[in-house]
Amino acid sequence: MIIMKAGATEEEVANVVKEIKKYGLKADVSRGEFRTVIGLVGDERKAPFSHFAVLPGVKEAMMIETPYKLISKEYGKLFDEESECRIVQVGNISIGGDEPVFIAGPCAVESKQQLFKITEGIKKAGAHILRGGIFKPRSSVHSFQGLGANGWEEAEEALSWLCEAGKRFGMPVITEVRGETQVDLIAEYVDILQIGARNMYDQDLLTKVAKKNKPILYKRHFGAGIEEFLSFAEYLAAEGNKDIILCERGILPVGKGKNYTRYTFDLAAIPAIQKETYLPIIADPSHATGRRDLVFNVSCAAIAAGANGLMIETHYDPAEALVDGQQMITPDELKGVIDACQRIRRLIAPTNKET
Amino acid sequence: MIIMKAGATEEEVANVVKEIKKYGLKADVSRGEFRTVIGLVGDERKAPFSHFAVLPGVKEAMMIETPYKLISKEYGKLFDEESECRIVQVGNISIGGDEPVFIAGPCAVESKQQLFKITEGIKKAGAHILRGGIFKPRSSVHSFQGLGANGWEEAEEALSWLCEAGKRFGMPVITEVRGETQVDLIAEYVDILQIGARNMYDQDLLTKVAKKNKPILYKRHFGAGIEEFLSFAEYLAAEGNKDIILCERGILPVGKGKNYTRYTFDLAAIPAIQKETYLPIIADPSHATGRRDLVFNVSCAAIAAGANGLMIETHYDPAEALVDGQQMITPDELKGVIDACQRIRRLIAPTNKET
Amino acid sequence: MIIMKAGATEEEVANVVKEIKKYGLKADVSRGEFRTVIGLVGDERKAPFSHFAVLPGVKEAMMIETPYKLISKEYGKLFDEESECRIVQVGNISIGGDEPVFIAGPCAVESKQQLFKITEGIKKAGAHILRGGIFKPRSSVHSFQGLGANGWEEAEEALSWLCEAGKRFGMPVITEVRGETQVDLIAEYVDILQIGARNMYDQDLLTKVAKKNKPILYKRHFGAGIEEFLSFAEYLAAEGNKDIILCERGILPVGKGKNYTRYTFDLAAIPAIQKETYLPIIADPSHATGRRDLVFNVSCAAIAAGANGLMIETHYDPAEALVDGQQMITPDELKGVIDACQRIRRLIAPTNKET
Amino acid sequence: MIIMKAGATEEEVANVVKEIKKYGLKADVSRGEFRTVIGLVGDERKAPFSHFAVLPGVKEAMMIETPYKLISKEYGKLFDEESECRIVQVGNISIGGDEPVFIAGPCAVESKQQLFKITEGIKKAGAHILRGGIFKPRSSVHSFQGLGANGWEEAEEALSWLCEAGKRFGMPVITEVRGETQVDLIAEYVDILQIGARNMYDQDLLTKVAKKNKPILYKRHFGAGIEEFLSFAEYLAAEGNKDIILCERGILPVGKGKNYTRYTFDLAAIPAIQKETYLPIIADPSHATGRRDLVFNVSCAAIAAGANGLMIETHYDPAEALVDGQQMITPDELKGVIDACQRIRRLIAPTNKET
Repeated sequence: MIIMKAGATEEEVANVVKEIKKYGLKADVSRGEFRTVIGLVGDERKAPFSHFAVLPGVKEAMMIETPYKLISKEYGKLFDEESECRIVQVGNISIGGDEPVFIAGPCAVESKQQLFKITEGIKKAGAHILRGGIFKPRSSVHSFQGLGANGWEEAEEALSWLCEAGKRFGMPVITEVRGETQVDLIAEYVDILQIGARNMYDQDLLTKVAKKNKPILYKRHFGAGIEEFLSFAEYLAAEGNKDIILCERGILPVGKGKNYTRYTFDLAAIPAIQKETYLPIIADPSHATGRRDLVFNVSCAAIAAGANGLMIETHYDPAEALVDGQQMITPDELKGVIDACQRIRRLIAPTNKET
Repeated sequence: MIIMKAGATEEEVANVVKEIKKYGLKADVSRGEFRTVIGLVGDERKAPFSHFAVLPGVKEAMMIETPYKLISKEYGKLFDEESECRIVQVGNISIGGDEPVFIAGPCAVESKQQLFKITEGIKKAGAHILRGGIFKPRSSVHSFQGLGANGWEEAEEALSWLCEAGKRFGMPVITEVRGETQVDLIAEYVDILQIGARNMYDQDLLTKVAKKNKPILYKRHFGAGIEEFLSFAEYLAAEGNKDIILCERGILPVGKGKNYTRYTFDLAAIPAIQKETYLPIIADPSHATGRRDLVFNVSCAAIAAGANGLMIETHYDPAEALVDGQQMITPDELKGVIDACQRIRRLIAPTNKET
Repeated sequence: MIIMKAGATEEEVANVVKEIKKYGLKADVSRGEFRTVIGLVGDERKAPFSHFAVLPGVKEAMMIETPYKLISKEYGKLFDEESECRIVQVGNISIGGDEPVFIAGPCAVESKQQLFKITEGIKKAGAHILRGGIFKPRSSVHSFQGLGANGWEEAEEALSWLCEAGKRFGMPVITEVRGETQVDLIAEYVDILQIGARNMYDQDLLTKVAKKNKPILYKRHFGAGIEEFLSFAEYLAAEGNKDIILCERGILPVGKGKNYTRYTFDLAAIPAIQKETYLPIIADPSHATGRRDLVFNVSCAAIAAGANGLMIETHYDPAEALVDGQQMITPDELKGVIDACQRIRRLIAPTNKET
Repeated sequence: MIIMKAGATEEEVANVVKEIKKYGLKADVSRGEFRTVIGLVGDERKAPFSHFAVLPGVKEAMMIETPYKLISKEYGKLFDEESECRIVQVGNISIGGDEPVFIAGPCAVESKQQLFKITEGIKKAGAHILRGGIFKPRSSVHSFQGLGANGWEEAEEALSWLCEAGKRFGMPVITEVRGETQVDLIAEYVDILQIGARNMYDQDLLTKVAKKNKPILYKRHFGAGIEEFLSFAEYLAAEGNKDIILCERGILPVGKGKNYTRYTFDLAAIPAIQKETYLPIIADPSHATGRRDLVFNVSCAAIAAGANGLMIETHYDPAEALVDGQQMITPDELKGVIDACQRIRRLIAPTNKET
């Protein structure tokens, strides 16, 4: 990491970048209010820091060997000492600010009518962003794979519905990108690109998605420790895209005998991650528990623990849904969740800041 | 399970119990406001339910094959249809009622002075019950095992301090029972007997502790699924002791790469367990996270999820503690936790009841 | 699943396939010595089996609802009642036959010289197939990502070395495919396409790789249960490619306190999987343990449990390797492993068949 | 740890022990062929090693801070530099020597007739030691708890059968001790005391069992990492009893979707543990897999990996057994296992030593 002097010129910055590239590394230039910082991407042990340190305009050059550094709290503090969390802006919605953000919608888009009816419901309930799955990752090749599985034409039609529903009800939209060949198409239609838990480790997909320069919702794999999760998020940041929203959605259950939730919701990971990175983090109580009767309690808990928002699967008639009906709630129930969470947030926020 | 008629006489109940015993089973007689229910302890498949059904005073006789039944919600509803949760009464403290209960104190009792100083601090902070470890279960035989390890005399002296501190500051006291030979001694001095996570499976200890007819704090083992946890709690209830307070204290972390918490706090287990049993359940954020800087957030979350209370390790100078200093908070910090939790509880409680 | 009559004509088969497609399903036609079987790919609940059953040439039509059926033992038995295991043929090497197969080579290809020196060593040691990583999936974006990360040109050059080394020493070659965009290029140069543990769930990659009609080595994800592993292998088979070699390479370690292996080698999964599917399965003791001093013992054990082969990372100077040096063994050590394993196999094979 | 000079007198040793005790520590005196070593039990940081070092007869005094030291390989090497493994002698059976040892018998003793019939069968099959459960730890209080649950009288009767069967067929016997109050009684009747997985952490039980000075079979808890397992085994050794046979019996399964074994058999733990300690280690394929059709393969693998023996549940009619029928094999099948394992051992042993 190279910290430039307060008055460093653009030429001096460009020169440092040029020098960095000579050693097979990439440069991540971040301009803060008071200074410019250049992060090195790649194996820093190859880099001659003593040489970098004496280049014109350079204040300090130091090696950082942690697996994630571009998204680390320390790196963030170099630009904005006051801020604990980056604001990811999507249209007029701020993720990472004072108010928690609510993303809702069906697990899978099934028809235009289904999507519009749900969108209307969640808008009334107070949700901010619309989600809807088009390419669904499923455990069995013999299960419904989303409308996207029926070919590019049908995928594009479903994406256009999502886009239209978002415009009609004034909500940004998000959908999951499951493979590299879908990135270009999906990026044309949605405001946020989601990388699902199963693809968390897919570094070629990460690189391709990050290059679209759109906000990314990045879910933790159910088998990933916190360090691993953040190390792979660094693949996104290494492409120069820091508009990353992390998402805790449950890890593998462990324990003798039957457990009663689909995954184990790792609540403490939320504040633990917030101490490591400046990226906002939201929770997905629907997938974490797999039980609609636990969504209210887990949602309240996540916000009480400091989560920056929630993603909740919603359907006007969960029993009728083609995928994940047992974990969806209705728009009316969603309203109850949002109201309770907003009150908890207001209550907890000032105290929370002091600790 | 045998449900007696509304006007069944004591003789009729006694006769049913006698019949049950003939088949090598034990009988758990529970008298509610409106009716008496007799639970069978042991393998019900040996029992002739058609014979029981026609005994005088019997209204209904039915087999229940779940591994826990005496502590199940259904069994509880037979007595009190209104109540979702049993109130475990300890002195003037009610666990399982409208207000969350806070148990605090040092991980290990080190001296009388240390104990009294901490007790004074937590009392001022608003805690209700005093905890203090005397027999400490440790991973290494070469670590400090608590004052109890220095022989019965020193153990008894430490127990008497605990008892005295409780009286001085008007708080019931609790300590952990680690082996069968300690039960009699400890039961003389404390109000609640704690069975630690490592002893969760120790059914001989469970049986001996339950027979003391004192309230029991029963911690989930870090490798136990919810069904297993409740099945072993049934060993306590099978001795006729239903004053059981369950405790979620974190399960084994799983995930590639480093994790940043000592255990994984299984937040969703709290409401999931409350849907299965009428027993109250509290959370232990100190052991679950192993990090003092996460205790505030996790405590708020646990109460927001519906926990009936918290157990929090507290020390006036955590750095000086012989055991677990990195996870203890100060009495001042405890006050912040209790205040926030009480406000969350009041906010969440009415909404919570409706779901 | 539809079983055709013994003398069914090609037209009858084609007609059944046409009918199946009408219902949005795909057809997997398998011709055995005695009969033809048509598997349905997709949600069979949509299919009118009573209608299929009366089509010309059809003997039997039945629904199978397990998540994997095309790779199941039962399906395999329909063609060859005698065989327990499919032989995957790669050049003159048979995987799944009487002799265990040994795949060896460096974790990462570093230079032509390094690759040729290692290939010579493993050939002498008795290995059958050469492995060498070119696109490396790494936890940190700041670590060496393989020569493939330096651009398509350098990737192609490294692939050509692999190809050349294989030809020079008479061994088929295998390398890992990490993303969809690499499939076409890699398939031109290698005999077996490897899908790594981290990509096990990447169904778009699976589909693209399967379509190349080359043998596939498919590794179990460290967070996947056996059913999930086989359900995703079905994605490969659903493209008509059944030349799949499964690989057990260790799952997430679980347990309080430090563990002494990198992953937990799930030995019992090997015979358990062999009872579910006709696909051959090999073991990767290098990744499973992460310790070169355990490779000998774990290799012997895997073969004793019935594994069809091993994949072992090998380097003439492990300390000098850029990736995974701590788990590689030398060609000399490899010879010891291969000799012991072959003797165990001969000893165990006849007895093994009887159980 | 204090190493005495070659010619140190008994008085000098006694004097060192006396000095150690002054500091609240216990002393573990081990006399080898060439020298005497005194291990310290307790927190060594309290001990003045510079003072110990100058006591008469002392050659060297050094602090060792690992959680297990009395059972460590290094400690063992101080006495017998040649030996990798301690021989635990039970009657004329040597555990830890050149030949693997086979322990077999029913999960639970059900009757004298059942026990004798099984003992005869396993004797013919080649087993060396007879096992039979009398106090059974069960997940449900409503399941069969073993004959021991029917009172001390019946427990003693069952123990006497075990003792008698062992004498009749010339086999040492072993049974599980589940609680502290059972130790005295059981120790009168059996040759080896077993501490089950669920009691691994029960340090009061460990201490009491170790004091009986009989060989102990000590099973790894399903939630314990290797370091934790060895740290708790140290509790046994700290009482001066080093006749400890470790047992790997499967750890908690982890992985999305259904798994096909009851636990995950941690094969690699066997050689990993053998590198840490001089204690012998055996495997229990019955509990590890929970499947009788996997016992043969897993047994062969365990021996191939270097296990010192096996414990296998055996019943002449598994379907009729009251407990664990699905994982028991018949005496005939046991013979097949023993024969194959003995041949593998002979084949592997010389090679194994060289690595």
